[in-house]
Amino acid sequence: MNVISTPTLLLDEKTVRRNISVMADKAKQNKVVFKPHFKTHQSVQIGQWFQDVGVEKITVSSVTMAEYFADAGWMDITIAFPCNILQIDRINELAARISLSILVSDANALPVLTQSLTNPVQVYIEIDTGSDRTGWAPHQTDSISKVVNQIYDHSQLQFKGFYSHPGHSYAARSKSEIRKIHGDAVSKINSLKKQFQTQYPDLVCCIGDTPCCSVAKHFEGIDEISPGNFVFYDLMQHQIGACRLKDISVALACPVVATYPQRGEIVIHGGAVHLSKESIRVDGHKMYGRIVQLSNDLHWEEPVDGCWVKSLSQEHGIVKCSNECIKQLDLGDLIGILPVHSCLTADAMKKYYTINDLTELEHMQASL
Amino acid sequence: MNVISTPTLLLDEKTVRRNISVMADKAKQNKVVFKPHFKTHQSVQIGQWFQDVGVEKITVSSVTMAEYFADAGWMDITIAFPCNILQIDRINELAARISLSILVSDANALPVLTQSLTNPVQVYIEIDTGSDRTGWAPHQTDSISKVVNQIYDHSQLQFKGFYSHPGHSYAARSKSEIRKIHGDAVSKINSLKKQFQTQYPDLVCCIGDTPCCSVAKHFEGIDEISPGNFVFYDLMQHQIGACRLKDISVALACPVVATYPQRGEIVIHGGAVHLSKESIRVDGHKMYGRIVQLSNDLHWEEPVDGCWVKSLSQEHGIVKCSNECIKQLDLGDLIGILPVHSCLTADAMKKYYTINDLTELEHMQASL
Repeated sequence: MNVISTPTLLLDEKTVRRNISVMADKAKQNKVVFKPHFKTHQSVQIGQWFQDVGVEKITVSSVTMAEYFADAGWMDITIAFPCNILQIDRINELAARISLSILVSDANALPVLTQSLTNPVQVYIEIDTGSDRTGWAPHQTDSISKVVNQIYDHSQLQFKGFYSHPGHSYAARSKSEIRKIHGDAVSKINSLKKQFQTQYPDLVCCIGDTPCCSVAKHFEGIDEISPGNFVFYDLMQHQIGACRLKDISVALACPVVATYPQRGEIVIHGGAVHLSKESIRVDGHKMYGRIVQLSNDLHWEEPVDGCWVKSLSQEHGIVKCSNECIKQLDLGDLIGILPVHSCLTADAMKKYYTINDLTELEHMQASL
Repeated sequence: MNVISTPTLLLDEKTVRRNISVMADKAKQNKVVFKPHFKTHQSVQIGQWFQDVGVEKITVSSVTMAEYFADAGWMDITIAFPCNILQIDRINELAARISLSILVSDANALPVLTQSLTNPVQVYIEIDTGSDRTGWAPHQTDSISKVVNQIYDHSQLQFKGFYSHPGHSYAARSKSEIRKIHGDAVSKINSLKKQFQTQYPDLVCCIGDTPCCSVAKHFEGIDEISPGNFVFYDLMQHQIGACRLKDISVALACPVVATYPQRGEIVIHGGAVHLSKESIRVDGHKMYGRIVQLSNDLHWEEPVDGCWVKSLSQEHGIVKCSNECIKQLDLGDLIGILPVHSCLTADAMKKYYTINDLTELEHMQASL
């Protein structure tokens, strides 16, 4: 790759490695096992940067992703997604070669698991601490107890503990709101833990959202954390209060393909198929990305004030630009876009280029 | 592919071929050249179904897509996206082997084109008939005239005519609203045409949005149409008033991975990386897809009342379900999701399976 001429996902390795180190250190200080979620980067090479700080256990969001990272040598993988009983054969194959953990989020999965598992699998019971997505509410202790007993009675199923993704932290808009959600989730998990710990002294509890793991100061009773997005962060995490703008480690380089100074707008090659249609509301308007100036060596600083991606079609992005900014831009220039949701942008782009030397890093999507 | 166990994009070939025929017939009746936009399907095989009804000229949204279809034998391609001057070498390579048309949407592209083109390229001037995205407003006749003259004075540039995508038709909510937008766009284009036709008697005018091309009855003064989405249609087109629900020809098959009857919700494997985050508002709530029952041979009928995808995370979809529907669903069942925006769902899924025999059809994204 000599020159960038199409939408290209740039990655600042230094910032990525810093984000990884900060979270790894935090886990160490709080004596929790760091089991990062790899759904954000989906990259074997970025996975190695986690190995560099001692990570051995990881979390993924699909059987396909577990296979991809197992092929790359990861030997302890949790699939943090409700067990899909249609994939039992692939679960068996995986369990034969790695230490595999799965989530049970619906009791109806157990008959299939108990009948069809051919190798030991560790099972987390998913707890819904308030996100209203998947799992049992913490107060459903009778149902949870039944499921735990069914798991315990079966030779290939090992009851591992409780897993919760407090995804309602995404509705927070400040550090204190995040900490409140975190405190509540931790308290609910601890209450469950106490009820089951006598019978199952080895049970572990894992929580896994980036806002809470980034901002919380206390993890009492929590044994493992599995945040994912923190590796790149994004504008949504910044809006939530989970990161600083300078922690965002990816930017989409986009060519300017039309300039309309009278409208105060430019048009870029960079649309919904690159950034995804995820948006946030800021000052009463929708925003699909913020603008950063790219230096000659493709580094960027904080976003430019008064400029944002105001709409996206399939390949077009319309950027609202301040007069000052538009004066400095010419057709064919490259600008950087900080994404609203880096997981989706990375999934759409299917590869990364490091800003230091434009090394191409793999994304799982390109290998499917 | 034996059994579907993960999110899979199903395609109803019969409906796709009907959508193609209806539009091809309409073009014929109105004596306009049918230059379908291939950005929606991005598939060499689906492209052949257009050849079956006599299509010879096509429209695409990027140089990459033009190369993909040129490699498949298409010899007349229009890149309906503002000319990206950073791609001049690839434009030259394409122009050497096919009849290539490009769009100029900003006069600043012309110096590069006139200096660097090595082969003849036909040029449309993009006209903004109200979508506020790209091109000149129809009243900017002085600016347009300057650009036309610059093009005309250069040996490798051939002034082809005017191109407009009246994308503001997406804000319509009825056939009559669409027809009003269409009428206005056609009138603006005709007014421009009259001014330039004396000097350039061969100039052609092309319009290209699915709502207008689906619903309009008159195309006076229009020489070419280039709609794209109509090949699949989707819930957004249905909401606009451009199609019937039974014209939607793709559905995402998704496994049920958790059921929560008390919440009136089920959870599917099928998230933002499959459907895209495009949503519409219906009855005051956001909707990311509607539910269809899949028969044993994977056919579907009209969507189930009272059921819709209410939220998406990366891999999860939460489906609001009527009591009646939820009673009939078991863990591991497959349900179909009609997408809100089929172009983005197809781009995310990167392949299709026909419902008759699960033949895999290629999508360009899988070849990159």
